[in-house]
Amino acid sequence: MAAAIDFYFDFSSPYGYLAATKIEALAAKHGRCVNWRPMLLGAAMKVTGGLPLPQIPLKGDYARRDFVRSARFHGAPFRVPSSFPISTVPAVRAFYWAQAKDPVKSISLAKALYKAYFADDADISRVEEVIRVATDVGFNSEEVAAGIGDQAVKDKTKAEVDAAIGKGVFGSPFIIIDGEPFWGIDRFDQIEKWLATGGW
Amino acid sequence: MAAAIDFYFDFSSPYGYLAATKIEALAAKHGRCVNWRPMLLGAAMKVTGGLPLPQIPLKGDYARRDFVRSARFHGAPFRVPSSFPISTVPAVRAFYWAQAKDPVKSISLAKALYKAYFADDADISRVEEVIRVATDVGFNSEEVAAGIGDQAVKDKTKAEVDAAIGKGVFGSPFIIIDGEPFWGIDRFDQIEKWLATGGW
Repeated sequence: MAAAIDFYFDFSSPYGYLAATKIEALAAKHGRCVNWRPMLLGAAMKVTGGLPLPQIPLKGDYARRDFVRSARFHGAPFRVPSSFPISTVPAVRAFYWAQAKDPVKSISLAKALYKAYFADDADISRVEEVIRVATDVGFNSEEVAAGIGDQAVKDKTKAEVDAAIGKGVFGSPFIIIDGEPFWGIDRFDQIEKWLATGGW
Repeated sequence: MAAAIDFYFDFSSPYGYLAATKIEALAAKHGRCVNWRPMLLGAAMKVTGGLPLPQIPLKGDYARRDFVRSARFHGAPFRVPSSFPISTVPAVRAFYWAQAKDPVKSISLAKALYKAYFADDADISRVEEVIRVATDVGFNSEEVAAGIGDQAVKDKTKAEVDAAIGKGVFGSPFIIIDGEPFWGIDRFDQIEKWLATGGW
């Protein structure tokens, strides 16, 4: 069995959301599993000096248009959230708590959080919304709430984010396959070829 | 006849170079002509606050790797130039001078300048190199030299760069089709669909 693909993403990233709708089918087609690794772009931006797209003159206007068009292109339900971008710390903590408890269901949680934010305009920066989404995929609400507040989960989250940046992750989605990094939903064509050929 | 596609690019942009190897075939397939519009990314970066990729932590390392891999993916000869990025003011001026003199041959000049820089490691920030490349595609060296220094050509260059920024161009390549903007060689899949369907 070939090594799993590392899939890094930020829950506030539209392109990460689009990637999340496609990564598993792509990986499975080539006999690969996917490690879902939510991170915090804000932490990476402290290293790169980057800004959230909407804040950048010219690029922000383009990005807003490209989000919508790209979602249509990839066939994913999407609307620009009322509040964008947002802090996703509670969502990431909930994910890593869930991963320790039930790895398979944690992937359902990641997808549900993305759908809640980008398709249903739920404000997943709010702990209550994260708990609601987690409950919908079958977790116990009190356990999730406790998990989000647990110091060990906070430490795990920080360690994961630091490790991502240590591997050079600065954007979302960011996929690493056998050490080879790919940034962006728009590198899925290269990822496909890489998986099929083992590099070129 | 449908309207021409506007193809904006910077001569120091690897992704612009890759796009330049593909844009005409793509446009022709859909009955479109291409307006080649070299611009100066440095001027756009004054508006966006952006930096050249190599100067950005994490992103710069990734970009250098992605340039090489993307060139292989797209089948274009490429090496990271010894000096990168560079000022391309003489190249852009030579192009707009050439465009006024011989529009068809000016496109050959654009392609030859890109090839000189990204395949042959010629330093096209130097006026003498630009003149050499222009001579190779059939222009008269003394006329090119005079053109690059001509105030009217300088004014035309500035007007084109300002107009590009006015249209929201902040990256390279940047393609506008019937008012719809597309940024990046990695939007060619969307461009292809847009040209085929008239939007979606």
